[in-house]
Amino acid sequence: MNDDLKTYLRQQAGIFDRYLGQYYRRSESDPEEPLEILQQSMAYSLLAGGKRLRPILAMGSCRLFDGDLERVLPVALAIEMVHTYSLIHDDLPAMDDDNFRRGIPTNHKVYGEGMAILAGDALLTDAFGFLAGAETLTESTRLELVRGLSRAAGSTGMVAGQAIDLYCEGRADVSREILFDLHRRKTGAMITFSVLAGGMVAGARTEDLERLETYGRSIGLAFQVADDVLDETGTEAELGKDAGSDREKDKLTSVSLLGLEQSRVLLEELVQEAVEALKPYGERAARLRQLAEYIAVRKN
Amino acid sequence: MNDDLKTYLRQQAGIFDRYLGQYYRRSESDPEEPLEILQQSMAYSLLAGGKRLRPILAMGSCRLFDGDLERVLPVALAIEMVHTYSLIHDDLPAMDDDNFRRGIPTNHKVYGEGMAILAGDALLTDAFGFLAGAETLTESTRLELVRGLSRAAGSTGMVAGQAIDLYCEGRADVSREILFDLHRRKTGAMITFSVLAGGMVAGARTEDLERLETYGRSIGLAFQVADDVLDETGTEAELGKDAGSDREKDKLTSVSLLGLEQSRVLLEELVQEAVEALKPYGERAARLRQLAEYIAVRKN
Repeated sequence: MNDDLKTYLRQQAGIFDRYLGQYYRRSESDPEEPLEILQQSMAYSLLAGGKRLRPILAMGSCRLFDGDLERVLPVALAIEMVHTYSLIHDDLPAMDDDNFRRGIPTNHKVYGEGMAILAGDALLTDAFGFLAGAETLTESTRLELVRGLSRAAGSTGMVAGQAIDLYCEGRADVSREILFDLHRRKTGAMITFSVLAGGMVAGARTEDLERLETYGRSIGLAFQVADDVLDETGTEAELGKDAGSDREKDKLTSVSLLGLEQSRVLLEELVQEAVEALKPYGERAARLRQLAEYIAVRKN
Repeated sequence: MNDDLKTYLRQQAGIFDRYLGQYYRRSESDPEEPLEILQQSMAYSLLAGGKRLRPILAMGSCRLFDGDLERVLPVALAIEMVHTYSLIHDDLPAMDDDNFRRGIPTNHKVYGEGMAILAGDALLTDAFGFLAGAETLTESTRLELVRGLSRAAGSTGMVAGQAIDLYCEGRADVSREILFDLHRRKTGAMITFSVLAGGMVAGARTEDLERLETYGRSIGLAFQVADDVLDETGTEAELGKDAGSDREKDKLTSVSLLGLEQSRVLLEELVQEAVEALKPYGERAARLRQLAEYIAVRKN
């Protein structure tokens, strides 16, 4: 990754984190009150040092259509809240049963299973209220975003992907189609929505939103394939968790299904698709193009 | 309970269930696809024979201000979806660890813990999208409802109540104030919102909404106190679960804190408060008045 992109990613994450910091803070003191514990548990995972990829995508696609930061930031926050809830629930013993994420103990390891379930529930619930109250946006844009976020995250989107994931665990007879359906829903839907939301907020036209959707779908799938490749080839320090943990858990991944080499070929095709969709915007889309490439080669 | 009220409750629940049936159906066949399993798990709990108290309250307060059924039904459904998710998560081993609800096995006993977590997540997520898409309502009413539902259910409402509940488990030093704060959030907030939502949908004025709020807060607390009394005095058949299970689990309840007699006195006071708030509406509010009395004496 070149230094220029590194600086850009850091700056954008910084802008988002400063906005987030107005609403969530890590507390230094030991919490005494149950409501403080809940708040702290939510903040713990929100502030656990994520890359802020979804917010950066929303901000990037908003900027492509000259949209204001103050219009897209509340949407980016709602998206990151929903993403964070999904990680907390995904790490639970009844789901992926992970002890570490981003190099620190998972939410339930710190706050207990019950509180982790509640922290996830609260982040998800609060996200919709936050979005509906975003007064820098028109009422109809807010409603469109609430519906879009619900679709991307709900029973036909992200949660559906997790259900397929759960169902596939340990099965040998899973096809390429099912695996990609799983990926498209589990991670792709929210990434696509992040890209689209930035355009919606900026008032992009229908044909522009269609291009953003193509771009979002390609990088969304690329993100998961890259994740699978990384799980196989990355070091523990890069991953913030045990290397090869997918394989050890017999998890269905692009690598287990296509092999490492074919997964890399697929990754390149997906990045090409994403870059192609942005062609009409020329140099103005340079950042989104770089983001597509970054997603395919990132180290963590 | 007199026969007239019984008929009314059955009719209202029937109206709601027919509406619900357009969206959720119990499937006869064994599900093959993971998405079918998720859908079935959601439908299993939604169709598990609840009293539909929250929908009936929303419908009742909507009717008090001459609102249309077709405007309130989508709101009632979103509320019942959120209520149902909260029951699924509350029954999980890491929370209340209940094996039965309404006389049938809890969601995770049938579908497994992972799928139960996902079914709850999906119901919660879908509820907001459904509400935002309710085209019989104006855009600003829909946004107000999304915000109100999020507040009632989220980190300062229902989930906060569950966090307090989790925190209090096994503690001896809990005050009456903390217990009622718990009740007001855990069950009261959603019941109050149900009553308010019916008024909002019908275009009730601010002073009317304030009266509905007083009514809702009183019956919301009464509901939980009645639940505690019932757990202590009801039979297994009435409860659909083991009698005295709160006491056995050392759970903090109105009965464990105030004793049975004082809990009954409190119940009467709360019903009086609720009835008082409806006085300006005279006979038009007869049903809501009866509902307040029903909540305090119900057998299950």
